[in-house]
Amino acid sequence: MENFLEAAYAEAAAGYAEGGIPIGSVLVHRGKIIGRGHNRRVQKGSAILHGEMDALENAGRLPAAVYRECELYTTLSPCPMCSGTILLYGIPKVIIGENKTFMGEEELLRSKGVQVNVMDDAACYNLMQQFIKDKPELWNEDIGV
Amino acid sequence: MENFLEAAYAEAAAGYAEGGIPIGSVLVHRGKIIGRGHNRRVQKGSAILHGEMDALENAGRLPAAVYRECELYTTLSPCPMCSGTILLYGIPKVIIGENKTFMGEEELLRSKGVQVNVMDDAACYNLMQQFIKDKPELWNEDIGV
Repeated sequence: MENFLEAAYAEAAAGYAEGGIPIGSVLVHRGKIIGRGHNRRVQKGSAILHGEMDALENAGRLPAAVYRECELYTTLSPCPMCSGTILLYGIPKVIIGENKTFMGEEELLRSKGVQVNVMDDAACYNLMQQFIKDKPELWNEDIGV
Repeated sequence: MENFLEAAYAEAAAGYAEGGIPIGSVLVHRGKIIGRGHNRRVQKGSAILHGEMDALENAGRLPAAVYRECELYTTLSPCPMCSGTILLYGIPKVIIGENKTFMGEEELLRSKGVQVNVMDDAACYNLMQQFIKDKPELWNEDIGV
């Protein structure tokens, strides 16, 4: 089986190669990736296409029953927007590459019954640190700072 | 000055005329609309373009300082995704057409210091009721039910 966090990281790396913010995500349903995405702020001038949102958008319109059998992999702890989207669709499990760079709404997710696993992945962390060192203003824009 | 809730309603009505889900939104900065949008689930096959998200996306990339001077008008109480986005960007005030059809995360928003005004607007309510009567499955898909 494909390593899903590696697939999310590959999305992040692809975004970085495009000059974008290196955060990637994949939506997995019953052991299969049904949506892949990465942050598109730079590439599409988007205010809402974080990696997780892009993966969900690329998965297309799905019935609620599908989301409830999904796992969402993301290279970075999900912000309030992406966490709210996880709650809207009732995605029961989120696997996070790292949360040292940014601590998202993990507690909110857990309080609503979402299983949250943090992998403390060095590759995810190092890519974000390299990006933030290069472009701190772009990172701040992405998280509303 | 333009009536901003009427502008959000006009977006909702435009979406309905397109065969879509009739929820509209406008983002207002210092008394001027800088983003207009409506739900695009049907029109774009989108899982994330709720009315509020579409208005924010159409406003384009903005620095955090601008969002902090904005008001977001929406015809319907904002779901967890849209509420999370309001929190991500620190939008301080949300004006809601109605919350009888759907009660969103108003308490979460208030708990984080967002001013939330509910207008109990009959036109917003009646449009949603008409839509849900026609297409209940589409409405359920939009709110993850």
